[in-house]
Amino acid sequence: MTQSADVFDLASAMSRVARVMEECLDSLLPQVPGLEARLVEAMRYAALGGGKRMRAFVVMEAASLFAVAETSAARVAASIEMLHAYSLIHDDLPAMDDDDMRRGKPSTHKAFDEATAILAGDALQARAFEVLAEPETHSDAAARCDLVLALGHAAGSRGMAGGQMIDIEAEGRVLTAVEVTRLQALKTGRLIQFSAEAGAILGRASPSQRRALAAYGADLGTAFQIADDLLDAEGTAEETGKATGKDAAAGKATMVAILGIESARTHALMLSQQAVAHLEGFDERADGLRALASFAVERRS
Amino acid sequence: MTQSADVFDLASAMSRVARVMEECLDSLLPQVPGLEARLVEAMRYAALGGGKRMRAFVVMEAASLFAVAETSAARVAASIEMLHAYSLIHDDLPAMDDDDMRRGKPSTHKAFDEATAILAGDALQARAFEVLAEPETHSDAAARCDLVLALGHAAGSRGMAGGQMIDIEAEGRVLTAVEVTRLQALKTGRLIQFSAEAGAILGRASPSQRRALAAYGADLGTAFQIADDLLDAEGTAEETGKATGKDAAAGKATMVAILGIESARTHALMLSQQAVAHLEGFDERADGLRALASFAVERRS
Repeated sequence: MTQSADVFDLASAMSRVARVMEECLDSLLPQVPGLEARLVEAMRYAALGGGKRMRAFVVMEAASLFAVAETSAARVAASIEMLHAYSLIHDDLPAMDDDDMRRGKPSTHKAFDEATAILAGDALQARAFEVLAEPETHSDAAARCDLVLALGHAAGSRGMAGGQMIDIEAEGRVLTAVEVTRLQALKTGRLIQFSAEAGAILGRASPSQRRALAAYGADLGTAFQIADDLLDAEGTAEETGKATGKDAAAGKATMVAILGIESARTHALMLSQQAVAHLEGFDERADGLRALASFAVERRS
Repeated sequence: MTQSADVFDLASAMSRVARVMEECLDSLLPQVPGLEARLVEAMRYAALGGGKRMRAFVVMEAASLFAVAETSAARVAASIEMLHAYSLIHDDLPAMDDDDMRRGKPSTHKAFDEATAILAGDALQARAFEVLAEPETHSDAAARCDLVLALGHAAGSRGMAGGQMIDIEAEGRVLTAVEVTRLQALKTGRLIQFSAEAGAILGRASPSQRRALAAYGADLGTAFQIADDLLDAEGTAEETGKATGKDAAAGKATMVAILGIESARTHALMLSQQAVAHLEGFDERADGLRALASFAVERRS
C-alpha cells in the first residue's frame, strides 16, 4: 500500500458516497399515489437510509479512475445498491435465513409483510436493470448493454442467486474450503466484482484494466465476506445491527467454520493485500479502492 | 376481422411457437453441475414444458410484421416467457396466492421448496434481462437497450409487480371498475403490451406502428385477463390445470365480480374487437395476432 493510501480519508469519502446514494436512490424510486404506494414504500424502506454503501463506493471510485461523470457513476452505483437491497430482502425472508433485523431496523417482511417484501425485492431487481439501460446512464448504448449483461451474470444462477442456493444446500453438509470459496465468490463476490468492473465499463477502460478491476473486486468480495463471518462469530448484535452467532447455530458453511478464527483472519488479510496488488497499474486515484481493501477486513461492523 | 384471419390456423401456429420456445428456453437455461444444480433445475421446471406461450406467440407474430429474423424474435419471446414464469412462481408462493398447482402440475414451491422457488424466480428475472442485452438478440445495442427498458417498465412497480401489489391490497376492499381495470392493466396487461411492442422494437418500426402494437397488446391483455377470471368463475380444475373458484373465495377484485358473468363476457369481446381494430394498418401478416384476439376470449382453458 502506498503512503497516500494510508492517509486517504476513507470515512469521509464513504460518507460522501452514502449521501450521494440517498439522493440518487430517492430520485430513482419516487413515491407514487394509488394502491401500489405500499410497494414503493417497501422498496424505499429497503433501499434508502442505511448500509455502508460499499458497492456504490467501489463503483464511484473505479469510475473516477477514468474520469467518468459522477452522475453516470452514481446511477450505476444506485442500480447495484438496489440489486443488493433486493437480495437482502429476499435473504431475510422466513423461508430463507429468517432474519428479523437488518441494518439495525426490522427487516422488510417484518416492517411490512411477506408478500410485500417478496414483491419489493422483485420490483427493485427490475428497476436496477431498467436504470442501467436508461440513456442518462451512458451516452453509448453498447456500454449500457455491457452493464446489463454483467449485472445479469452477477445476479443470476451463475452469480448471487446461485451462491444463495449453494448456501441453502450446504446446511447440514460439510463443505470443503474450495466449495466454500466458490459459494462466497458467487453469493457475495460477483456483485462486488461487477461494482469494480462497472467503473471500467463506464470508462471504456482497456481489457487489461477491466480485468485488473474485476480481480480487485473478486478478492475484495471474498475478504469482505470472511470479515463478515468473523463479525458474526465474534461481534455483538449491537455492533453489527443484525443478529450474530447465527451461522454457527445454523451450521452454515463459512471459512471461519473451516479454518478457525485466526486462520480465517489471516486468509482475509492476505486476500485484502492481493486485492490491492491488482491495482498496481493505477495511480493515486486508486487510493480509495486501496483504503477500502484494508477497511473491509479491519471493520467492527 | 378479415376472411383470412378467420381461416388462420391458430392452433398449429401456437403449437409451432410452443415447440420453438421449448428448444430456445432449453438452450438459454443449460443445466449446470455443482450444488447450485437444484436452482437451475427449478428454473427449468417452471419455464419449460408448459403453458400456451401466448406472450411468445405475440412477440413472434409482431416481429414477423417487420421481417425480423426468427432467432432474434425467439430470444426475446423466451426472455418474456422467463419473466412470466418467474411471476407465476412468486404469485403461487404461500405468502402470495398460495397455489399448489400450476399448468396441471405441482407449483414450483411444492415440487421443490419455498426458498428454492423464491431463488428460481429471482434468477429467471435476471436471466430474462441478460438475454435481452446479449448481442445475439439484435445487432443494434440501442434496440437491445430499448428492450431492457421496456421490460423493466413492464415488470416493475409501474407494471406487473405494482399490479400484484394492488391485487393484494384489494383483498377485502371493494374496488371500482376503473380500479380493477388499472389493476389488471398493470398485473397482466403491461407484459402482453410489451410482447407486442417488442416486435416493433426488434423491427425498428415507426412510432405509429409501435403505438398500434402497444394498444393491441394492452387491449388483448385486459381481454385475456377477464377471460381468465371467467374461467376461474365457471371452469373446472380439470379444464384449466389449476384450482378454480378461488377468486370469489378470496374476495378477489375482478371484472367478473363487478360486472357479473354476462357483462364481463361482453366487455371482453368488445376489448378483443378493439385490439383487432388497432391492427388495421397491417396486412394479412397480422392475421395471427387477429386470430389470437378472438381465441383469448373464446378459450376454455
